[in-house]
Amino acid sequence: MGINLINFLSSKSKSKSLREFQDLDHLDGVSISTISANLYNNDRDDLVMFYFRDGANFASLYTQSNIVSENIKWNLNQKTKKIYSLIINTRNANCFTGKQGYKSLEKIADIVSQKLNDKQKEDEDEPKKIKSKEILFGCTGTIGETYPEEKIKKRIPELVSKLKYTQNKYIWMKAALGIMTTDTQPKMAMEECEIGSTKVKIFGIAKGSGMIQPNMGTTLGYIFTDANIPNDVLKKLIKKNISTTFNAISCDGDTSTNDMVAIFSTAYAKHKLIKNASDEKLQFFDESLNKVLLNLAKRVVADGEGASKFVSINIVNCKTEIDAKKIGFSIANSPLVKTAIAGEDPNWGRVVMAIGKAGVQINLDKLDIKFGNLNIIQNGKIFSGYSEVEVAEYMKNDNIEINVNISSGTKNFVTYTMDFTKKYIEINADYRS
Amino acid sequence: MGINLINFLSSKSKSKSLREFQDLDHLDGVSISTISANLYNNDRDDLVMFYFRDGANFASLYTQSNIVSENIKWNLNQKTKKIYSLIINTRNANCFTGKQGYKSLEKIADIVSQKLNDKQKEDEDEPKKIKSKEILFGCTGTIGETYPEEKIKKRIPELVSKLKYTQNKYIWMKAALGIMTTDTQPKMAMEECEIGSTKVKIFGIAKGSGMIQPNMGTTLGYIFTDANIPNDVLKKLIKKNISTTFNAISCDGDTSTNDMVAIFSTAYAKHKLIKNASDEKLQFFDESLNKVLLNLAKRVVADGEGASKFVSINIVNCKTEIDAKKIGFSIANSPLVKTAIAGEDPNWGRVVMAIGKAGVQINLDKLDIKFGNLNIIQNGKIFSGYSEVEVAEYMKNDNIEINVNISSGTKNFVTYTMDFTKKYIEINADYRS
Repeated sequence: MGINLINFLSSKSKSKSLREFQDLDHLDGVSISTISANLYNNDRDDLVMFYFRDGANFASLYTQSNIVSENIKWNLNQKTKKIYSLIINTRNANCFTGKQGYKSLEKIADIVSQKLNDKQKEDEDEPKKIKSKEILFGCTGTIGETYPEEKIKKRIPELVSKLKYTQNKYIWMKAALGIMTTDTQPKMAMEECEIGSTKVKIFGIAKGSGMIQPNMGTTLGYIFTDANIPNDVLKKLIKKNISTTFNAISCDGDTSTNDMVAIFSTAYAKHKLIKNASDEKLQFFDESLNKVLLNLAKRVVADGEGASKFVSINIVNCKTEIDAKKIGFSIANSPLVKTAIAGEDPNWGRVVMAIGKAGVQINLDKLDIKFGNLNIIQNGKIFSGYSEVEVAEYMKNDNIEINVNISSGTKNFVTYTMDFTKKYIEINADYRS
Repeated sequence: MGINLINFLSSKSKSKSLREFQDLDHLDGVSISTISANLYNNDRDDLVMFYFRDGANFASLYTQSNIVSENIKWNLNQKTKKIYSLIINTRNANCFTGKQGYKSLEKIADIVSQKLNDKQKEDEDEPKKIKSKEILFGCTGTIGETYPEEKIKKRIPELVSKLKYTQNKYIWMKAALGIMTTDTQPKMAMEECEIGSTKVKIFGIAKGSGMIQPNMGTTLGYIFTDANIPNDVLKKLIKKNISTTFNAISCDGDTSTNDMVAIFSTAYAKHKLIKNASDEKLQFFDESLNKVLLNLAKRVVADGEGASKFVSINIVNCKTEIDAKKIGFSIANSPLVKTAIAGEDPNWGRVVMAIGKAGVQINLDKLDIKFGNLNIIQNGKIFSGYSEVEVAEYMKNDNIEINVNISSGTKNFVTYTMDFTKKYIEINADYRS
C-alpha cells in the first residue's frame, strides 16, 4: 500500500514529501522515553512518555463526540497552568471503562509524579514539586476493554529511568512508532521559524489511521515547541489552525471518542514576551504551526487504513466556508466515490451525486468539476473536449485532486481523504482477531 | 452472498420471508410489458412499461438531493390528474445529461402516447386521448452518460404491442427483474386488505442496491392498487408511510439523484368513495401499504451491494424521533460498525463510538445496549454477565439486531442496513468496467 506522496505538500512549504521523514532532533525542555508494557502481548513499544523538566505551557483540544474516553475526562478535569508529563498508551482506548478506567489513571498519575519528583531531586538544583494533576494522558485502541492498569503501572519506574535530556531523531521516531495502532508509518513533522529575531522550533507527532473524521479535536496529535507562549495564546493558535488541518481530513467519516491534539511550549527560547494571539511577532510561528499540523494531518490520511490513494478535494467559490466544507466532506465520505477511486474509475457521476446530497443549494448551470487539471463539467455541462480515456489515465495517479467550483460566492475549503479498498475491509473486519 | 432472511419480517405481517417471492397476479387496470433495448449490450430486459388503460390516480415522491435527474424534472413538470403509463429504463440514470436528456424524454413520451392512442382506438369502445404529459419516467444507472434515446425509441412499438390485459406472476417477475441494476434479486411485495367490505390489492416492486440512503423519496419503488383513492389522499398516505420504510434504510449512506417512489390507483375496486386520508375505511389499506413498503425496503437492504448480513437497529426512548433517527443512521452508516459486522466481530465499542458522534446529547449512566437479546451495556456499564464468546456466536447470524435504549424519552426509530464486505468494494470499484 505504498503511496507515492512526493509533491503533494503545498509548494510554499519547505517540508519534505510525506514519503520521507524529517529528522526531529533536540528540543530544549522536552525529554522522551518509550517502553513496551506488553499491551499487544509482543515486544513492541506501546507506552510513550514526554517529560518537561521545567513544565510546559499548553493547550489541548478534544473530540466533540458525546461519548468521551476516561483519559479525556481526566485531562479536562485537571485545572493547572503547567504540564510536566504527557503519557500515551496504545491498544486500549480507556473508553467505556467506567470508574475503573478513571481510577487507574489516578493511580498511574500518582506513581508518575512520585517517580518524576525523585528524578527532580536527583537532577535539579531547585527541584519542583510535580503534582498528579500536572500529568496528561493520551489513550488509543479498542473501546470497552478493561484498562490495563497493572501492566502500565509496573513499567513506569523504568520508563522514567530511561529519560535522557538530549533528544535525537531516533527517540522521536521511537515515540512516533510507539503511539501507532493500525498505522503503517510513523507521522512526524517539524518547522523552524523566528519569533522576533529568535529562532524557535515546532515539532509534532501524530497517529491515525481509522475512526478518522476528527471533530474539533483530532486523532492523537502532539506538538512541541521551545517558544515561550502563554496558555491562552496557545489555545487560540491551535483552535485557529486546527480547522483547516486536522478538522479537514476524513479517512472513514467516523469520529473517535479519544481525539486529542495538544501543544506544549517549553519556553526555553528567549524571545520577547508574547502577550496575545494578535501579536505581530507570532506571524511566522502561526504559519509554521499550520504547516506542521497540515503535514501531520496529511500523513494521517495518506496512511489511512488500506489507503492506496491520497485524495485532495478543493471546493471553491461557495457562499460560506460551511457550505464548502459540507460539499467537501460529502464527497470525501461517500463510499461510492471512495470505491470508484480505488478502482481507478473516472466515475465523476458519483461526485455529482455527492455534491447533490450535501444539503447545499447550488446553481447547476455554474458548476465546474475538474479531476486534476482535466475539465469534466463546465458551466453545468460536460466539457466539450472531455476525454474519458484521459481522465481514466489520470485516475492511475497516487494523488488524486477533485476540483469543484460552485461559483456562488468567495469561500473555499480543502478536504483530504483516501480511497476505500478491499484492504480497508480486511483491516476492519479482523481488527481484534 | 445468500442471506437467510426468514423470520425477520415483523411477526404481525402475513408476508412471506424475504427469501421467497410472493406471487403477484392480476391487478385490474394494470398492464405490463418488458423488453431489451440492448442498453447493456446483452439480451437482458432493460425497459419496462406499465400501462393503465383507464388511467390511474397517482402520487409520487422524489429524491431531496439538490441535483436531480432529467426524468424527475420531467415527472415534476407534468401537471396532470391521471397517469396512463410509467416507463422505466436501467443502465442510464439520465442525470447530468442536460437538455439532451430532457428532450429525449419528450420525444419518447410523444411516441409512447401515439402508440398507446393507436391501441386505445383498437381496444376500447370509448378510446381516450392520452397526452404525453400523462406519462411518467423512471431512470436508473450511471450518472452523466448520454441518454440512449434512439435505442429506447426504437423499441417502443414492440413494447406497446406486447401489452396484455391479464397479468400473471411471470410478467410481474419480469418487470421486477427488468428494473434491476446491481441487484441480485428482484424485489416484489403484495398485501390484500379491505376498504369497507370491498377487497383491494396492493402490489409493489422496487430496486436497489447501491447509492441507498433515500431521502424523502427512494431508490425506485412502484406501488399499484386497484383501490379507488384520490391523488391528494394517495400523497398523504405515501408520505406518512415512507418515513418508517424506505426512508429508514441505508446501504451506503449515499443518496441517489434518481430516487422515486410512486403509487398508482386504478380505481377498479368498487368500494365506497374515499374523500380524505383520515377516512376510517382506510385503516387496513394504510397498514397494508406500510407492510408492502417495508417489505420492499427490507428487500432492498438485504440485497444491498455485497451484503452478507441484514442489520436492524432499534433506537428506543429518545427525546425526539429525530434524535432516534440520527443515532440509528450514525450506527448504520459507520464503516467501522459495518466492517466489524462483516467480520462477525462483537466490537460493540464501535457502536458506542457511533452513538457518541451522532450529535445527540445522551446520559451515559442510562445507556443500554443489546445485540439481539444479549445484554452488553446496562446503565452505562458493561453488563455483569457479559460474555464475549456468547456475543461472538451471535454475530454469526445472518440477521443482526442492535438494540439501544437511550432512556431519555419515549420516541423510537428503527433503521435497517447491511454490512460492508470485500464484495462491496469489488462491485463498486469495478462498477462500470
